Amino acid sequence: MPSIRLALAQTNPVLGDLRGNAEAMISVAKEAASQGADLVLFGEMALSGYPIEDLAYRPAFLSSCEAEVARFASRLVEEGLGHLTVVLGHPANASVGTQNGWAIARNVATVLRDGNVVTDYTKHHLPNYSVFDEYRVFVPGNDLSSFDLGGLRFSLVICEDIWQSGGPVAEIAKRGTDVTLVLNGSPFQMEKDDRRLELVQSLAKKQQCAVAYVNLVGGQDDLVFEGDSMYVNASGQVIQRLPKFTSMLSFIDITNKAVASSPTQPSQPPTDARAEVWQALVSGLQDYVNKNGFKSVILGLSGGIDSAVCAAIAKDALGSDRVFGVSMPSDYSSEHSKTDAFDLATRLGISYRTEPIAAITKVAESQLKLTDVAAENLQARVRGIILMGLSNQEGHLTLTTGNKTELAVGYSTIYGDSVGGFGPLKDVEKTLVWGLARWRNEYARSLGELEPIPVNSIEKPPSAELRPGQVDQDSLPPYELLDALLRGYVEEHKNRDELISEGFTAEVVDRIIRLVDASEWKRRQGAIGPKITALSFGRDRRIPITNRFRQS
Amino acid sequence: MPSIRLALAQTNPVLGDLRGNAEAMISVAKEAASQGADLVLFGEMALSGYPIEDLAYRPAFLSSCEAEVARFASRLVEEGLGHLTVVLGHPANASVGTQNGWAIARNVATVLRDGNVVTDYTKHHLPNYSVFDEYRVFVPGNDLSSFDLGGLRFSLVICEDIWQSGGPVAEIAKRGTDVTLVLNGSPFQMEKDDRRLELVQSLAKKQQCAVAYVNLVGGQDDLVFEGDSMYVNASGQVIQRLPKFTSMLSFIDITNKAVASSPTQPSQPPTDARAEVWQALVSGLQDYVNKNGFKSVILGLSGGIDSAVCAAIAKDALGSDRVFGVSMPSDYSSEHSKTDAFDLATRLGISYRTEPIAAITKVAESQLKLTDVAAENLQARVRGIILMGLSNQEGHLTLTTGNKTELAVGYSTIYGDSVGGFGPLKDVEKTLVWGLARWRNEYARSLGELEPIPVNSIEKPPSAELRPGQVDQDSLPPYELLDALLRGYVEEHKNRDELISEGFTAEVVDRIIRLVDASEWKRRQGAIGPKITALSFGRDRRIPITNRFRQS
Repeated sequence: MPSIRLALAQTNPVLGDLRGNAEAMISVAKEAASQGADLVLFGEMALSGYPIEDLAYRPAFLSSCEAEVARFASRLVEEGLGHLTVVLGHPANASVGTQNGWAIARNVATVLRDGNVVTDYTKHHLPNYSVFDEYRVFVPGNDLSSFDLGGLRFSLVICEDIWQSGGPVAEIAKRGTDVTLVLNGSPFQMEKDDRRLELVQSLAKKQQCAVAYVNLVGGQDDLVFEGDSMYVNASGQVIQRLPKFTSMLSFIDITNKAVASSPTQPSQPPTDARAEVWQALVSGLQDYVNKNGFKSVILGLSGGIDSAVCAAIAKDALGSDRVFGVSMPSDYSSEHSKTDAFDLATRLGISYRTEPIAAITKVAESQLKLTDVAAENLQARVRGIILMGLSNQEGHLTLTTGNKTELAVGYSTIYGDSVGGFGPLKDVEKTLVWGLARWRNEYARSLGELEPIPVNSIEKPPSAELRPGQVDQDSLPPYELLDALLRGYVEEHKNRDELISEGFTAEVVDRIIRLVDASEWKRRQGAIGPKITALSFGRDRRIPITNRFRQS
Repeated sequence: MPSIRLALAQTNPVLGDLRGNAEAMISVAKEAASQGADLVLFGEMALSGYPIEDLAYRPAFLSSCEAEVARFASRLVEEGLGHLTVVLGHPANASVGTQNGWAIARNVATVLRDGNVVTDYTKHHLPNYSVFDEYRVFVPGNDLSSFDLGGLRFSLVICEDIWQSGGPVAEIAKRGTDVTLVLNGSPFQMEKDDRRLELVQSLAKKQQCAVAYVNLVGGQDDLVFEGDSMYVNASGQVIQRLPKFTSMLSFIDITNKAVASSPTQPSQPPTDARAEVWQALVSGLQDYVNKNGFKSVILGLSGGIDSAVCAAIAKDALGSDRVFGVSMPSDYSSEHSKTDAFDLATRLGISYRTEPIAAITKVAESQLKLTDVAAENLQARVRGIILMGLSNQEGHLTLTTGNKTELAVGYSTIYGDSVGGFGPLKDVEKTLVWGLARWRNEYARSLGELEPIPVNSIEKPPSAELRPGQVDQDSLPPYELLDALLRGYVEEHKNRDELISEGFTAEVVDRIIRLVDASEWKRRQGAIGPKITALSFGRDRRIPITNRFRQS
């Protein structure tokens, strides 16, 4: 009776840090071996991080990746791990280029044992939609790869291969595969995990094999990989499903494709969608800061909900000591904007200071004779100057606190409140910002902790406070309605008439479409932030700036 | 003896302005008919503008395009032009989607006559490299389309189809084609016209047919279409080649595939590469400003070469009345920075004012206690605030004057000198900025006009003037050397060792590579500007921000 102990290795690589990632994987392999593993499965591009984008065009990068795979194989032997079979994803050279010689790389899974390559597999289905540009840089492979171990047959495929039909996946059953190993770099998106489980189960049933699915974890620029690695037997039954957003090593004992047992308990993913989004945002910020070597972050605290949620995310990601809040009141700022900001900082235990903007603003306003919107924008830009000045002087990463709704309609000042290298709420619509705040406070209560976010910041009407008594709803529809409309227009590509037939007034539809279209140039210069929806702003949505297409 | 008068229509569509473009094309068709044309050929996506990017995902956009083609066919009949055969490019729905249902459009050429569709063709080779993402949005066609007119057989292909091998192009000769009609949206790139001519001639010879090649003209965001439309007979002989960067209608009388005559003289393209780049930059700025409805531009005039060249381009693009220069001296500004800026504005006849930065800077510097680089950046950011304040108050588009070399090494202040919606010199390396200045002055002399650019701005050592006596060469290698190194690293993907073997010192190579890699996040937030090289910053070069890959 064959029996193989398979280790699922859910790791968080740093993009481009080939040596660092390889050594971390050696440690994981060592731990796996010490727990009796025969086979260790890492994620897609676990050696290099993912996605590598146009680094694929640099011959030096590809040859370094290949050299690091060879070194890794030797290191395994050196560490007495030669008997382990290790499957890892990495970039490699392609022997041929495609269009105009541009695409020259391959997205590969390599199987190592005893210092040798047992077999390798090149990804066939190259995603070229949403945030992915894989036709741009990779040449597809066409052949399924399999290998035998302990009387079982294993086949290899990579990520998108199971999201599309046809290709090597269709050969899995014909090969007599017992277990399909799927290496993934599948980013977080709300509710995507249901679809992922479905696909894995359907693959198992259709190809009559067990499926081991390993995904990366961690943030990489605008993407957050959530893990959600799993093992499903040939009947589609979930034997194990790993917790999300955490590096982890986990084991399954496989007797045959139908029979497997899980020595550790399968952990259940959290069920509240807001909890998952919070984890994704924390993970995205944490990795952007740490992987880029920043010691701390700085952000403006206005007393409003966006900056409060950003600060709470930053504290959860980095700890209180690494978060610096600045209150920048103007003459138009309400008293509560100051007290709520101070309350927030106290609750979070983060650094807090006040830098009023009046002195700088007055000199500039009177020199330049600015009025109306120009004067309002000036206030936001003086705040930008203050944050960037302190960032440069003290070495913090500046966070911009704008949410997806604001970005959509251009309700922000470019070079003002938009300054910063990272925007935690970039893909979070306003109504969800409130939802996250409420969830985070509930979660704190459930742990018997102080609520991090002042109730007043959640409950007061939102305002940019750039003129006396101003509130957002002076110039925008109610946020519930606005977010629903934006989802229809931006994410679902609905047209004007469809939106009107759904009950939005023609006046609101026309005004909002116009605002979205007109702020394309501002979005183009915005900071990156973690993608959590099906369609985020950035490389996920490529709309010309010069564009006169109008539906009304 | 058959004889067909073919009109090549080199037009400048406004992206998304379907009705406006269609009506402009009706005027062109009318003019062509009045000069006896039988057949009019427009460029790729002439109806919609190009590239449409993710507008292809909007059903409302695609159905509007299809409706506009139908309306255009009726309008031709209505205008008494039903007898004309008109070939135009436009987006259309695809009956099937591809990956995850994302790609849903087709890039089509339609042949109209007497209000009917004679035939149509769907682009086969979809460019997915450089600035192009056509696999993302289009479904490829696979079949060549042909039609007969006046005893001649015409076949249709689109742009990339002739840059790749295989596909419908390979069927042209077998079809008995006399003339191949190629619709193009082929953006400007220095020296690309040689390659283009070569391809057209090689197609003619290989497929034994004449080739009519029509390209768009005009700027669209970061691309400039240069025209360079042409007619080549079956021996590869150039019968006509149209001037670049200008809308134009031109005629060829075709007897058979070997014999054609050109009633108008073929114009020669300018031979000086700098003259072409100048035209591309002028065209790119002009169309960005006009197509987006800006009345005027504003820019900082430092007395240095970058702002001088930007201002001269703006004047050539928009006229003196639409250009607003602002001198923003600091206490560290040299006397010549002010006099050279004033001299420039006088030569160009543009608006000029002085807004010293000292008052605002001092208040901010002392409030925030900024020193060293933080204080230097503050000066640049105060200039940014001034330009954006005046832009908001008076309604100008702000131009950022940074060049490609600065962008490459991050030698700029984000939210400071980088503010603006458009960067004319974004893809122009520093040494070419000087080259353009000298060329523009020479050109003025050749016309007997005043040199627009002060000689002192060209000849003095470049300086950011952010501290007393500072010059660029304090912190950067000489620009001749730097530009050569950057070309190697950025455009040619050379690795560290190759660069050292070419004679650059290891110290300089390591330092410059580090600067380029570290400024990715700043470039990501930069303004767009016209692409003129093989590899520009922006969507042409997609490098992760979080990236620890190092070659040393």
